[in-house]
Amino acid sequence: MLPQFRVSQEEAINVSGDDLRATAAAIFEKLGVPPEDAQVGADVLVLADLRGVDSHGVSNMLRSYVNGYTSGQINPRPNMKIVRETPATASIDSDRGLGVITAPKAMEIAIRKAKEVGVGMVTLGNARHLGMASYHAMMALQHDMIGVCMTSCPPRTLPTFGAEPRLGTNPIAVAVPAKNDHPFVFDAATSSVAQNKIEIARRLGAKLEPGWLATADGTPIMEEMEVPEIYHMLPMGATRELGSHKGYGLSCVVDILAGVLTGFGYGAVPGRPNFGHYVAAYSIAGFDDPEHFKTNMDEWLHMMKSTRPAPGHDRVLVAGQPEAEMEVIRREEGIPLHPEVVQWIQDTCGELSVECRF
Amino acid sequence: MLPQFRVSQEEAINVSGDDLRATAAAIFEKLGVPPEDAQVGADVLVLADLRGVDSHGVSNMLRSYVNGYTSGQINPRPNMKIVRETPATASIDSDRGLGVITAPKAMEIAIRKAKEVGVGMVTLGNARHLGMASYHAMMALQHDMIGVCMTSCPPRTLPTFGAEPRLGTNPIAVAVPAKNDHPFVFDAATSSVAQNKIEIARRLGAKLEPGWLATADGTPIMEEMEVPEIYHMLPMGATRELGSHKGYGLSCVVDILAGVLTGFGYGAVPGRPNFGHYVAAYSIAGFDDPEHFKTNMDEWLHMMKSTRPAPGHDRVLVAGQPEAEMEVIRREEGIPLHPEVVQWIQDTCGELSVECRF
Repeated sequence: MLPQFRVSQEEAINVSGDDLRATAAAIFEKLGVPPEDAQVGADVLVLADLRGVDSHGVSNMLRSYVNGYTSGQINPRPNMKIVRETPATASIDSDRGLGVITAPKAMEIAIRKAKEVGVGMVTLGNARHLGMASYHAMMALQHDMIGVCMTSCPPRTLPTFGAEPRLGTNPIAVAVPAKNDHPFVFDAATSSVAQNKIEIARRLGAKLEPGWLATADGTPIMEEMEVPEIYHMLPMGATRELGSHKGYGLSCVVDILAGVLTGFGYGAVPGRPNFGHYVAAYSIAGFDDPEHFKTNMDEWLHMMKSTRPAPGHDRVLVAGQPEAEMEVIRREEGIPLHPEVVQWIQDTCGELSVECRF
Repeated sequence: MLPQFRVSQEEAINVSGDDLRATAAAIFEKLGVPPEDAQVGADVLVLADLRGVDSHGVSNMLRSYVNGYTSGQINPRPNMKIVRETPATASIDSDRGLGVITAPKAMEIAIRKAKEVGVGMVTLGNARHLGMASYHAMMALQHDMIGVCMTSCPPRTLPTFGAEPRLGTNPIAVAVPAKNDHPFVFDAATSSVAQNKIEIARRLGAKLEPGWLATADGTPIMEEMEVPEIYHMLPMGATRELGSHKGYGLSCVVDILAGVLTGFGYGAVPGRPNFGHYVAAYSIAGFDDPEHFKTNMDEWLHMMKSTRPAPGHDRVLVAGQPEAEMEVIRREEGIPLHPEVVQWIQDTCGELSVECRF
């Protein structure tokens, strides 16, 4: 079984998405972020919470964003500049703006380009943390487009056979619309597990799975254990025998497209607090009739979900399905927050003299 | 250790790339393929052999292509038609042409579009086997572009938790130019291992690694063993705990982009002998000065390769490096072929009355 990352039902305090969004937006605004940008940033965080991606929601990320704005590492009013452009591409200097807020703007540019020429592809250099990658990819859905998002993160992850981290968790997100079914939404780190999940496991005292981490000298840890004091992340696949060269290679692809290609460095150079991002939109109408495509996606999703399960399993899931199911529940019941998180938000609101809605 | 797939030094017959290419081209031509196309097809096969990707070279693939042409499943003179097009995209009906030969033509269209608008992205429906995906991606390199190639294959691979194959081995290839160093070339199945490698292992009696296959009921096989009679492929990551949902999700991305998006079906529908392909070229000049980018790629490759190795390992490799090293050796020493393969080629040449150069 996977570690239980989520806060237990008994101790959780349920907060509505609207209240959490309004409160997070008020905090962003008080830190110098323009009102419209503050709304976007809060929306990205809260959608992660609503979809059950707690690792990238308010409880796990807002604190580091507050620290980043307060310390000056994140620029609340970045002057985003397009430094290169063609009909299908753009390269943006994001002036140390938070990716949570700048990536949606870059994705809007990509969508506009895809409307004009079929594909839009935009890199963001000189950037800060992205938030949930699939948020930006999913912006393409309402335009009958496929959305893609990647981010080159500061190094935490070992190359296969390596003892020094050279790559970030470097996630890839791809969102594809369907007609009546939920969209296909893939969003995963190319490391064996998202960095945020390790820290949540540490906070909750949960056990790690074999193949998630390596010891300080680079040896993969292949037994269940608590999060060690010093560790490195492993690429997806854990060991060469289990295919870690594929996870490592895909992580390199992300480091190149969302890092080197920006012209502003990559995960390891200049490193923290720098990030690089990549967003793209592919217009389905450039390849097929969108209605035909979306009907086929419904069929394709049904085929995948109706697969006969292997012994010990109830059903076969498809990417985006657990998140879509969770979103229905949490829009109804609210987002379960740990009391310590609620306390931190209330304290922060108190310090910043902004209204906490809960 | 990984199974030793390659033919042993003692029994190998070394054949020069030029002789193998000329012979394969003569065979293609005799099967009805136009001379120029026959040269392309032979070049794709032999580059796989030269780069040590024996699973996709002459010895492992030519026989099935000969059978496909002979049985009429592959059209030797396809009438490729662009069915949709925008400045950055095209969708091609490849009229049952072999992907080995049609994908380079699609990639040429993608490169032309990338020169014009920054990105070119082309799907190929109604297609047959692709050959080595990285061949097509690598065509972008000489144009200072990043090349991408994917192929949606007939189902062999289980979804995570599933007992029925729904996805092919669905590889992803990405090629990125450097200035003085070898290019970065990633090319990997999103299944735990390439289908062709299983069949080579069966032929050579090599043992499989844990996590490569599942039993007939969908249970992952987690011990070393010979290739069982009935098996299913697992997605990259093998088990949910080790991250198979990521390999499964990426395989779905390939099935969508190289399958559903073509408008001609996907891996499972209509299934064998149908394949779908996706190629793309991203002009580096659309994002950064190409010389700046390629110099940065040299630095990036050096950083990766100079990583301190973990205990038990000599060095850290980067995608494209083992293949570039093998290519230097095999261009010098020739391609080592198993005597049975040489015999089959000689017999086939005899049957078809074409000259065998060895």
